[in-house]
Amino acid sequence: MPALEGVLETVLYVDDFERARAFYEGPLGLTAVYADQRMCAYDVGGASMLLLFRRGESLKTVTMPGGTIPPHDGNGPHHIAFSIAADELAGWETRLADFGVAIEGRTTWPRGGTSGRHRWCAAAGWRYSAPASRLPPLALFLRPAGR
Amino acid sequence: MPALEGVLETVLYVDDFERARAFYEGPLGLTAVYADQRMCAYDVGGASMLLLFRRGESLKTVTMPGGTIPPHDGNGPHHIAFSIAADELAGWETRLADFGVAIEGRTTWPRGGTSGRHRWCAAAGWRYSAPASRLPPLALFLRPAGR
Repeated sequence: MPALEGVLETVLYVDDFERARAFYEGPLGLTAVYADQRMCAYDVGGASMLLLFRRGESLKTVTMPGGTIPPHDGNGPHHIAFSIAADELAGWETRLADFGVAIEGRTTWPRGGTSGRHRWCAAAGWRYSAPASRLPPLALFLRPAGR
Repeated sequence: MPALEGVLETVLYVDDFERARAFYEGPLGLTAVYADQRMCAYDVGGASMLLLFRRGESLKTVTMPGGTIPPHDGNGPHHIAFSIAADELAGWETRLADFGVAIEGRTTWPRGGTSGRHRWCAAAGWRYSAPASRLPPLALFLRPAGR
């Protein structure tokens, strides 16, 4: 049978688009490869796309030159996870502290993990979380300053 | 500065956990690497983890042997995208038809794409969507039978 190669696009829906962009482009260091008034797209490590949409503004079918995109939306304190290299964990902790991003929780994963990667969890709304590997040894859950 | 290597975990929250599992494990052919009554985890192509959670059952902090995981949840007609190989598109269309998964929309992406991959979009709730590349040439938006 045919195979799924991976998850290409992960999507978050946000109320405060400018604040969300400032978080992903500030402490997380992502650069938008596309942005308009409704959404923006980040290439994460050449491996994944992270899309931010203004909440409630994609509830009608979008007609594009190549076809249509059905309505979509979401809300709630969502959760996603980023991968980082294990040897960059200390650098990330310093960077996050410099930006005032507080660590909301921290978990060492019981299944360990040998790939040398850490997991970074980012919960949407305004809770963010972070580092471990594919079988991740550690997760930090972060909260930006002010919330 | 340290880098994000990719999105490791993409999460969907579902009301009908058994039906959601049947969709991801049936037509989409994923195998759970972990499952309990509250959630399950799929390894997608060795590149990404897709997690399904029963909606509303992760709203309290979870204490694990290695630490804590803050509350998280989500709802709405969410949207994610899977990557598939371009030469497997026909096989996917056949497989989806065999399982009664209808194509809700189809889009050729204006930016084209040269990697030979297609994008598969799956919107949560019960709308699913499908195939293109990292700059994807084609997206199909799918709806399982019965909705």
